[in-house]
Amino acid sequence: MKQKIRMGMVGGGQGAFIGAVHRMAAALDGEIELVCGAFSSNPEKSKASGADLGLSPDRCYGTFQEMIQREKRLRPDRRMQFVSIVTPNHVHFAPAKMALENGFHVICDKPLTFNLKEALLLEKIVDKTGLIFALTHNYTGYPMVKQARQMIRQGELGELRKVVVEYPQGWLSTHVEASGQKQAAWRTDPSRSGIAGAMGDIGTHAENLAEYITGLKITEMCADISTFVPGRLLDDDGSVLLHFEGGAKGILHASQIAAGEENNLNIRIYGEKGGLEWRQMEPNTLIAKWLDKPTQMIRTGVGSLSPEAQAATRIPGGHPEGYLEAFANIYRNFAHCVQARIAGVEPDPIRNDFPGIRDGVRGMQFIEKVIASGKSKTKWVKL
Amino acid sequence: MKQKIRMGMVGGGQGAFIGAVHRMAAALDGEIELVCGAFSSNPEKSKASGADLGLSPDRCYGTFQEMIQREKRLRPDRRMQFVSIVTPNHVHFAPAKMALENGFHVICDKPLTFNLKEALLLEKIVDKTGLIFALTHNYTGYPMVKQARQMIRQGELGELRKVVVEYPQGWLSTHVEASGQKQAAWRTDPSRSGIAGAMGDIGTHAENLAEYITGLKITEMCADISTFVPGRLLDDDGSVLLHFEGGAKGILHASQIAAGEENNLNIRIYGEKGGLEWRQMEPNTLIAKWLDKPTQMIRTGVGSLSPEAQAATRIPGGHPEGYLEAFANIYRNFAHCVQARIAGVEPDPIRNDFPGIRDGVRGMQFIEKVIASGKSKTKWVKL
Amino acid sequence: MKQKIRMGMVGGGQGAFIGAVHRMAAALDGEIELVCGAFSSNPEKSKASGADLGLSPDRCYGTFQEMIQREKRLRPDRRMQFVSIVTPNHVHFAPAKMALENGFHVICDKPLTFNLKEALLLEKIVDKTGLIFALTHNYTGYPMVKQARQMIRQGELGELRKVVVEYPQGWLSTHVEASGQKQAAWRTDPSRSGIAGAMGDIGTHAENLAEYITGLKITEMCADISTFVPGRLLDDDGSVLLHFEGGAKGILHASQIAAGEENNLNIRIYGEKGGLEWRQMEPNTLIAKWLDKPTQMIRTGVGSLSPEAQAATRIPGGHPEGYLEAFANIYRNFAHCVQARIAGVEPDPIRNDFPGIRDGVRGMQFIEKVIASGKSKTKWVKL
Amino acid sequence: MKQKIRMGMVGGGQGAFIGAVHRMAAALDGEIELVCGAFSSNPEKSKASGADLGLSPDRCYGTFQEMIQREKRLRPDRRMQFVSIVTPNHVHFAPAKMALENGFHVICDKPLTFNLKEALLLEKIVDKTGLIFALTHNYTGYPMVKQARQMIRQGELGELRKVVVEYPQGWLSTHVEASGQKQAAWRTDPSRSGIAGAMGDIGTHAENLAEYITGLKITEMCADISTFVPGRLLDDDGSVLLHFEGGAKGILHASQIAAGEENNLNIRIYGEKGGLEWRQMEPNTLIAKWLDKPTQMIRTGVGSLSPEAQAATRIPGGHPEGYLEAFANIYRNFAHCVQARIAGVEPDPIRNDFPGIRDGVRGMQFIEKVIASGKSKTKWVKL
Repeated sequence: MKQKIRMGMVGGGQGAFIGAVHRMAAALDGEIELVCGAFSSNPEKSKASGADLGLSPDRCYGTFQEMIQREKRLRPDRRMQFVSIVTPNHVHFAPAKMALENGFHVICDKPLTFNLKEALLLEKIVDKTGLIFALTHNYTGYPMVKQARQMIRQGELGELRKVVVEYPQGWLSTHVEASGQKQAAWRTDPSRSGIAGAMGDIGTHAENLAEYITGLKITEMCADISTFVPGRLLDDDGSVLLHFEGGAKGILHASQIAAGEENNLNIRIYGEKGGLEWRQMEPNTLIAKWLDKPTQMIRTGVGSLSPEAQAATRIPGGHPEGYLEAFANIYRNFAHCVQARIAGVEPDPIRNDFPGIRDGVRGMQFIEKVIASGKSKTKWVKL
Repeated sequence: MKQKIRMGMVGGGQGAFIGAVHRMAAALDGEIELVCGAFSSNPEKSKASGADLGLSPDRCYGTFQEMIQREKRLRPDRRMQFVSIVTPNHVHFAPAKMALENGFHVICDKPLTFNLKEALLLEKIVDKTGLIFALTHNYTGYPMVKQARQMIRQGELGELRKVVVEYPQGWLSTHVEASGQKQAAWRTDPSRSGIAGAMGDIGTHAENLAEYITGLKITEMCADISTFVPGRLLDDDGSVLLHFEGGAKGILHASQIAAGEENNLNIRIYGEKGGLEWRQMEPNTLIAKWLDKPTQMIRTGVGSLSPEAQAATRIPGGHPEGYLEAFANIYRNFAHCVQARIAGVEPDPIRNDFPGIRDGVRGMQFIEKVIASGKSKTKWVKL
Repeated sequence: MKQKIRMGMVGGGQGAFIGAVHRMAAALDGEIELVCGAFSSNPEKSKASGADLGLSPDRCYGTFQEMIQREKRLRPDRRMQFVSIVTPNHVHFAPAKMALENGFHVICDKPLTFNLKEALLLEKIVDKTGLIFALTHNYTGYPMVKQARQMIRQGELGELRKVVVEYPQGWLSTHVEASGQKQAAWRTDPSRSGIAGAMGDIGTHAENLAEYITGLKITEMCADISTFVPGRLLDDDGSVLLHFEGGAKGILHASQIAAGEENNLNIRIYGEKGGLEWRQMEPNTLIAKWLDKPTQMIRTGVGSLSPEAQAATRIPGGHPEGYLEAFANIYRNFAHCVQARIAGVEPDPIRNDFPGIRDGVRGMQFIEKVIASGKSKTKWVKL
Repeated sequence: MKQKIRMGMVGGGQGAFIGAVHRMAAALDGEIELVCGAFSSNPEKSKASGADLGLSPDRCYGTFQEMIQREKRLRPDRRMQFVSIVTPNHVHFAPAKMALENGFHVICDKPLTFNLKEALLLEKIVDKTGLIFALTHNYTGYPMVKQARQMIRQGELGELRKVVVEYPQGWLSTHVEASGQKQAAWRTDPSRSGIAGAMGDIGTHAENLAEYITGLKITEMCADISTFVPGRLLDDDGSVLLHFEGGAKGILHASQIAAGEENNLNIRIYGEKGGLEWRQMEPNTLIAKWLDKPTQMIRTGVGSLSPEAQAATRIPGGHPEGYLEAFANIYRNFAHCVQARIAGVEPDPIRNDFPGIRDGVRGMQFIEKVIASGKSKTKWVKL
């Protein structure tokens, strides 16, 4: 009999957005069970949130410290097996560190930490403990993203030349944080978000997606970083020229003042022989363009796809899979690896595919450097 | 502390498609727990399937009869509270009847039964027992379908004139059932599917969607029903002219030999003042066309939507919600009503929205009449 | 030195829509020169219209009779060489007959005539005179329509099974003819349009397009013909089931009350091996769907296209060609054949491709039968 | 009686691409007549090209000098009234200068000249002669481009913040110029194209489009200019960060190695209140996105459009207008102004809208500066 993996959550109390997403993603495949949580720093609120989720009061904790300590003392077949961290950026490092140091695997929302220093420390802890660490750069969970990555690996585009990755949103076009909108408030607050606003919140997704699909590292950047909304304390828009290893060049555009845009992450990659285009808002289509053949619509669940794309697909073509399914693919692969670790076996290499601590450190380096480049009068800043 | 509702499943063993869909849909929102199942008529296979799902062997039954009898004897706080039926059409009626007669609520895959006679019997049982019965015409679970229905209810299109509903698929373009493909085999077998092939499998979805959105009943039909693939025993294509109450007219096109189509359910509705268009393969967009204004893209999670659409939405605009989310909306609303019943309170009217026994009977009437019309030399057949 | 072909026009005076389209289509390729016209039955208006077009008063006639008689007496190297007829339906037959009987080639707007009787008479005259006759079913002039036709001819789809052709427009959703709108007025007037409204005006385009692309004739029809707008004298909507020779089946939908639709002619064709989809409002894309390969976007001017499609293309891919270019393709091919006739040589077979008198007669038969089917209680009416 | 304006052409002989485009654009509206040309520097080829176009041998000249001198001596009612220059960049200045100095209006292909020096000289000549000068930045001729410009002028987007303009093509992904492909050969040859390849050929279109629509001037740029194809002598790709007057920021991306792209010019503009998106390959749709309303599809010929968009439209909505129609709008407006000048009246202000000498000088400045920025280590270069 297959056992569900037991999850404890930090953050994600009533009114939170991303906590609910993590819970649905964890629940979808029936392989993970939420058993406890420190859903809020307010113990009453944490208990109320837990009760909504069907948890008994004794598994709802007032602090992550309490959760980790108390769970550790529970019987091995009862206590949580990993911690999911869904708090704002400034509360990633401490629970991740403590969880790891107490033997719990960790899955953490992005960006990794409040700053690069914390990220490098956490990397050491992950390496030392040898525990499994996943970062929810969830967009890499889409089947067609995996298909794109595999096509490039197989050389179908030839050597890559140009990458254009965009992440325009419009929801911060006005000074919504002034009205107390919770999602906006912490993301635009340097004491909770870190040195970057849009570049941290969504720029890192764009950076991660570009590097994941192309398999190429960005080597240097030239950034124009802006704050358009009066009174805002962090950047809400950025345009960045990119140089990749191997000579490819690129553009990264991330904005939260692109009025009227929803969540329009997209990427186009051009090589010697063809191009690929993927748009998150219609995620089940990967457009492949060729020098001398008709453009193809490669579709989730249709025809001969890479094993990686197939493994990330749940239902037949034409039954659209969405954001939660892609997010759940991160959880599912993470859960698979945790189960393999428990069982003492090697994970399936196709499932051993989720963003980890290196991606997290990379993202924090990106944040530091892109903000630095924005302030620099020198054209290129190394990454 | 909120309790999860406990579900038992009939069918959906290893290798099944729709059973897994039902389980993911039930799991997504963390409000339903799978506690038992008769996953296969083969007891060994049923236990193996249950073990894969983390169920203990004593809750995996060899028959639905055994499941219902044994569960009934369990302590009320332990036994299943509703039955999910995910078998082929010819095994809908018996488990539904027995579950209801033993006090269990039922959620059942479509079409309702093997034939209209069973459907009418089942309707009586549902009415007599007063239990909650849901039918998974899952496409009505999409937020933009609900939005369309509400816009029409509010009179935004004026009186309706024309409805075009299509459901082209291409997966039965060749004689795949001859190769033993499991999904194709039962759907094209009159002893398991009933008198209709494509018209039952997907034609009923189209019929249900059209009546759900427009709020109008089809009154008569003129059908051209075909079997294109040599050797096939049931229809694989149908074109139907429709008359609706109130004078609207329509076209229903359902096909499983529309080569190259995935699952392209779509509907267009025209009234005096404007038109609506919705396509399942891009389900988060509802296109509204007007006599004298620019066409609008109404989007899941964006702007001022009806309460019904909002209640069916989990995440902000631009984070695509897909097939499983829509399917889960049927489960979520059903679960809400079951919980309200248990708690002895009235359900939220916005949640009391899922296809039920009447839709099921309607679908079976549609099947009988559309097949009859296909054989008739008279132009119009009443529905 | 290549000579331009000299055109005389009947109809198309100030305020006309389709006359201006014909003139632009004729002018585009620099192979046709407008030299005279009877632009209006009002001689003053005809002269004023001609003056706007840069014609001298002596070539602007008060009637088509006068034009034909007077032009015939001009020196051969000066007089018009063909007549373009752009009047409402009831004024097609007489000028076409007279032009042909006086030795002029004819290009005529569709539908061919006011009724089938006239069409059959005209067919005899065309046959007897042996002159060149073109009918502007302009949508067959699009490169991607020709590409679709050639792909089907080459057997790329295998045997055809299903054809869905639609022509929804919304511009007659209200009783605009009551306000004197000129285009609406004659199209909804039985004394000028004939027995059909929408089915004649746009239904014939759909019928012609389906038969042109598939190469199959419709053999019988079952029609539901409606007039939705109170006070309207002719049909404004029709839904038709189709049987084609060889066993293919189809649906034809033409409507002028599809509120909010512009000019949304589209066709989908499914065969044993794949499907094609073409939409007039994005005419440079032909979507090819396959049983086991990714969907392809075949594009005007891109890659290996049929010679017929290439001959209908003027500019490289990505430079959109539109309605006027497709219309001009009819004129260009017609002009080529007229020039070949004058030169006493055979026309290029690829250019000898434009709708002619047979298509016109076919269209009039379609009108008669589809209206008859709409009134019939028998299911199928032969065409 | 309205007279056609008489055009002489420089360049555009047999085998040329853009010459044929100019002739079709000039012919479409029946207001311009091609009367003579120096179609090739080879007199035989010039005569042969002219004969194909129906010109008599005495109006086909071996050089533009000969054409200008000889035409000038013809009777005023016979001689050409303006010169259309459709040669490669290095043969723009001399014929333009000579034509203007001999009293002929000029319409010239872009970019204006071979280098900025020539451009500034030509500007002085235009100013001195007071003659009409048009530059075929043809993409500004599209109705929806004009609509976008007017919406921004009316303040519908509020203050502008971000502009993203892209012009990816893929046709130079391989070293085609080595195979003698005529279009590629001169565009990649510094002695005919000037200092820029892609940035001159298409980058200037992007720059012109962005400034035309926004009404804002670029003030400084930071460019990354590349040559990806080995052996190529000029740039084939560029990514540019932009600063506009008033504080808006932007990205310009032009590439001819974006493998698989046809001619994908597109622009997105975001302001305080909303955003606009236009894509040349589907030019009849302007997407308007709003902070709190559904996205709108504004369409050529549909609903309430600006007078400028309406004046650029020939046919009703849903009848797609394409590249040639947009190109013809430049010619039509230019011809209107020439006719007004001849008639001694003021042109209609709505027609007095075409790119002119200032746009040409601006484009040459853009070329100089963007290439300089590409070589600079300093981040920002003033424009």
